Amino acid sequence: MTRASRSDLHREGLIAPPGAPTPSHDGTGRVRLHFLPLERDVRVPPGVTVFDAASWNGIAIDSTCGGHGTCKKCRVRITAGSIPVSRLDVRCFTTEELQDGWRLACMAGAVSDVSVDVPPLSTRPKAATVGVGRQVILRPAIQKRYLELVEPSLQDQRPDLQRVLDALDDLELRADLHALRRLPRVLRWANFTVTAVVVDDVLVDVEPGDTTARRFALAFDLGTTTVVATLLDTSTGTPAAVASMLNLQQPFGADVITRISATMLDPAAMEHLRALAQETLSTLAAEVCAEAEVDPGEVYEVALAGNATMTALLLGIDPEPLGVAPFIMSSATWPSLRAADLGLSLHPAAPAVVFPALGAYVGGDIVAGMLASGMDRDKRLRLFIDVGTNCEIVLGDGDRIVATAAPAGPAFEGGAIRCGMRAADGAIEVVTLSEDDVGLQVIGDVAPVGLCGSGLVDAVAELVRVGLLDYSGRLVSPEDAKEIAPGLADRFCSVGAERVFVLSWRGVEAAESVYLSQRDVRELQFAKAAIATGWTLLLEEFGITQGDVQQVLLAGSFGSYLSPASAVRIGLVPKLSILRIVSAGNVAGEGAKMVLLSMQERAGAAALLREVRYVELSDRTDFNDRFVDMLAFPG
Amino acid sequence: MTRASRSDLHREGLIAPPGAPTPSHDGTGRVRLHFLPLERDVRVPPGVTVFDAASWNGIAIDSTCGGHGTCKKCRVRITAGSIPVSRLDVRCFTTEELQDGWRLACMAGAVSDVSVDVPPLSTRPKAATVGVGRQVILRPAIQKRYLELVEPSLQDQRPDLQRVLDALDDLELRADLHALRRLPRVLRWANFTVTAVVVDDVLVDVEPGDTTARRFALAFDLGTTTVVATLLDTSTGTPAAVASMLNLQQPFGADVITRISATMLDPAAMEHLRALAQETLSTLAAEVCAEAEVDPGEVYEVALAGNATMTALLLGIDPEPLGVAPFIMSSATWPSLRAADLGLSLHPAAPAVVFPALGAYVGGDIVAGMLASGMDRDKRLRLFIDVGTNCEIVLGDGDRIVATAAPAGPAFEGGAIRCGMRAADGAIEVVTLSEDDVGLQVIGDVAPVGLCGSGLVDAVAELVRVGLLDYSGRLVSPEDAKEIAPGLADRFCSVGAERVFVLSWRGVEAAESVYLSQRDVRELQFAKAAIATGWTLLLEEFGITQGDVQQVLLAGSFGSYLSPASAVRIGLVPKLSILRIVSAGNVAGEGAKMVLLSMQERAGAAALLREVRYVELSDRTDFNDRFVDMLAFPG
Repeated sequence: MTRASRSDLHREGLIAPPGAPTPSHDGTGRVRLHFLPLERDVRVPPGVTVFDAASWNGIAIDSTCGGHGTCKKCRVRITAGSIPVSRLDVRCFTTEELQDGWRLACMAGAVSDVSVDVPPLSTRPKAATVGVGRQVILRPAIQKRYLELVEPSLQDQRPDLQRVLDALDDLELRADLHALRRLPRVLRWANFTVTAVVVDDVLVDVEPGDTTARRFALAFDLGTTTVVATLLDTSTGTPAAVASMLNLQQPFGADVITRISATMLDPAAMEHLRALAQETLSTLAAEVCAEAEVDPGEVYEVALAGNATMTALLLGIDPEPLGVAPFIMSSATWPSLRAADLGLSLHPAAPAVVFPALGAYVGGDIVAGMLASGMDRDKRLRLFIDVGTNCEIVLGDGDRIVATAAPAGPAFEGGAIRCGMRAADGAIEVVTLSEDDVGLQVIGDVAPVGLCGSGLVDAVAELVRVGLLDYSGRLVSPEDAKEIAPGLADRFCSVGAERVFVLSWRGVEAAESVYLSQRDVRELQFAKAAIATGWTLLLEEFGITQGDVQQVLLAGSFGSYLSPASAVRIGLVPKLSILRIVSAGNVAGEGAKMVLLSMQERAGAAALLREVRYVELSDRTDFNDRFVDMLAFPG
Repeated sequence: MTRASRSDLHREGLIAPPGAPTPSHDGTGRVRLHFLPLERDVRVPPGVTVFDAASWNGIAIDSTCGGHGTCKKCRVRITAGSIPVSRLDVRCFTTEELQDGWRLACMAGAVSDVSVDVPPLSTRPKAATVGVGRQVILRPAIQKRYLELVEPSLQDQRPDLQRVLDALDDLELRADLHALRRLPRVLRWANFTVTAVVVDDVLVDVEPGDTTARRFALAFDLGTTTVVATLLDTSTGTPAAVASMLNLQQPFGADVITRISATMLDPAAMEHLRALAQETLSTLAAEVCAEAEVDPGEVYEVALAGNATMTALLLGIDPEPLGVAPFIMSSATWPSLRAADLGLSLHPAAPAVVFPALGAYVGGDIVAGMLASGMDRDKRLRLFIDVGTNCEIVLGDGDRIVATAAPAGPAFEGGAIRCGMRAADGAIEVVTLSEDDVGLQVIGDVAPVGLCGSGLVDAVAELVRVGLLDYSGRLVSPEDAKEIAPGLADRFCSVGAERVFVLSWRGVEAAESVYLSQRDVRELQFAKAAIATGWTLLLEEFGITQGDVQQVLLAGSFGSYLSPASAVRIGLVPKLSILRIVSAGNVAGEGAKMVLLSMQERAGAAALLREVRYVELSDRTDFNDRFVDMLAFPG
């Protein structure tokens, strides 16, 4: 979507109204734009403007306003197919030029296949690199306009608001009550020389004098464990400050299920959890504003990505139906919200963009992650995996996207593992085996006290590699161990009735050391089998096999630490060259930044809800069979 | 406008999108509908539906839903001209019927002249009589729908909101956050058997079980002096309770100018005035709810009509620019507001409809009054006069409407009059003179203590009638008085240096009695001349004279008490048969009720802003000349 409202686009005939005959295209529900002289083909949903289609695909079109329809520099020529003449085209081109196909790209919604000739650049739109190497052209919802207005007189009694809106007549705005309250005094105090503050299609404020340089927004990644806030300078696209802290809801449980359970056991818990989430956000907001010396009133918009449970709790919505079958969300999308609805004291009229969710277990964090990693437009066959207690899996090829959630359980977070622990000081995070020794990398460079998720995956993968763990997941017999790796055989012990492999001795007793038990291996097998079943079923939906996957993106903080080689070896990800297995980082937070920097990306996030097909695993009759097949390690 | 949103109408091609070629019509900016078999012609703005056009003009079309598009009974046939086929038409008619011109009237927006054949009635829409004898077909914004929903399952994981909206698929709704917060618990607690509460295009709540019978709304007339609240049962259109009280802002001054001055003198006054206005509304809301045994949470919408200053103060907007030239409003219209923005604790998501204003001195109360008195559709040449310190004057003939405000000053409220007082106990409200006696009617049937506005007008009119006051406004000499009315001559006295006419003796001293002074007469002359100048200039705008006026509506409480004969005699209103001079009552409050009972009337109120031309008097170079001409009493 452009800055112009949808009704604008309807009016201009630029997008097909819902229910109108489907425009001619190739049957994928998208239209094809052929860009000249680059000879690049691009496919986008019908109605997307030529400007957006180009910038989504990294094709540069002249622009200084970023597609707001104000700079009138994004002149292109339609050489095949046609696009209706827009209201602005009439002002910018002669009749001959219009007949020759000249259009402003930012107003030109493509409803059928077209070829577009793009003149050489004379200016470049401002852009920022966000997400997984995504170039985002800056077109934030936040706009400021410096206005020198004519003072009212008996001959010109326009209301204050009308006077301001008339000076912004390229925008179609409504006013917030806050702006109306400020207008009479600010206009007169500043002698009608003011800066209008616009967010999307709302006039949120007028400020005395010229404040156009100060335009801040705040992106939140509301994780179950960790919450990250990034204060963005939307004029440059760069972070002004970043802060993170543990979610203050932690005392109610480590994962979403325990927090949902808390609300079921204690009627007061929901309100308490909401207050804690709000306090977490407020604390971070105050921190980043202080660090960047930004007045909270200069933060005009907020974006937040969180899973469905975190989002529900933040908004004061009962999460119980998310936690029990059939796993129902109150809503996939959210109404217009304000930062104040999230408990934030920023600009009083600052809106809050909260990411929508695809399902109870494929939440707004994953939608944000898909956006940041370009799952909707990268043409490669890519698999996105966010490993956690609940593991979200997405498969896309630029045309189709399918998503699912797999119940991996707590193994990757150290839960249900004898010596398991979170990724904190003392956790073994990397394990390498040689014939006679165990190499360990420990967080904080201290003596090992336990095993975190990446260490667990490494330990199992390495034992499989050297043959101390067979493909079915059974630790070999002491006799076999002696034969296979004599230098490691004395690490095969028993703790109680259970066989274990000692990773790091503490004293002489295996029970007091850091070890991996046979049951731990089983836990990991269950977890990885759930995930592998998930992506296997998604691959089947596409009719492809794991060898067809061109890239695996490991999302989330756990994804950053996981060894690609170990992930392949235990079958957590498809069997690919490890160069094709990429850590995507904190893509949820990046997605939140993107929607603040670009209205196009915001529209892209909304479009994901329509484009992604959610596949529910829990009612698949074939799930259990596949799951059992996936328990073994790949040969 | 129909219940369907504007985008609906765009989509259906039912209304001309803004900027589209103007449809053919007769040049008045309206289209003509010819109704058969009645042979009635009706003219409405393009895009208005056939159903609305009919009901605005008292032509009955079959309907039980009131035009919501749900009952599908409003079948009409277009016999000349054409109206596009709507989405609902396709479901209701055969192809042959569509070709024959059959349409649902509530979905049929007329964009060019058409003839419409209306079948005989089998049912009648519910209607209520409101305003100046207006029949309003009930189509409130508040709707309730009882729903028995299918429970979710793994095969049907629709989010709660989607489940509800799918059951309301004839409406195009968005949800309020409040409704989202309630959904998960209410749906499950009530076993998915709920009542959806919709206001306009927003789902504001879900309630357990069937609560469809309980639908209340609250209308406020926020006067500078008196505030009236009417609790409406929107299912019947009848008031459930009415209450009134003095505006608690009274201590800050009797009129808008003194209250504006208060905010200029004391920075804290504005907030204080806001709090007092809110307290006034809250007190009345509690009173009517208690009286009618309605839970405040069952009041789902509020409408409020007030003058520009009262409205600004209520919303916390600085009124100063309203009070000083060039008299500028912060805005003519208001953004979406909630009852909570007015300080009201009703349903948490209840919206508030606040009447827009035409100018700083033709406020929302007058827009409401115009609506209630049908100034926009009555074909007679009518003059609407709301007499007060600021007197609003409107002239209309069903096609054109012009409005202005005349600064009458406080005379009509007893201000600046020696023995003047408000219309309270002891005030002389009616004066009749015979040759030798003075007949008085006193409020409260007590001894007279002063003279209120209607008594003042009567006294002057009667003195003019019997010849004791000449046409220039001078009391005749004592000698002439003796000759003209010997029985009244002893009432001609002096108080100080000023000549007076004693209306009611208290003791023997004129100074202690209730009298009318020469200066009082001058004050009234100034006041009536300002008003008469106002309507004279409006008549000139129409190119007509006072004899052409077919009806004068005297609005407001003062209008109810004013003697039409006296008003004619002093030249306050055009010289007409007194049968043509009608008291319109509290039309502001009636207008507020109408917008709660009918979405069509609400659209009509919004249309008034476009249709009425505001004429500013204070910069008219001819104002003073006319004013002087108008000082004398008509011969």
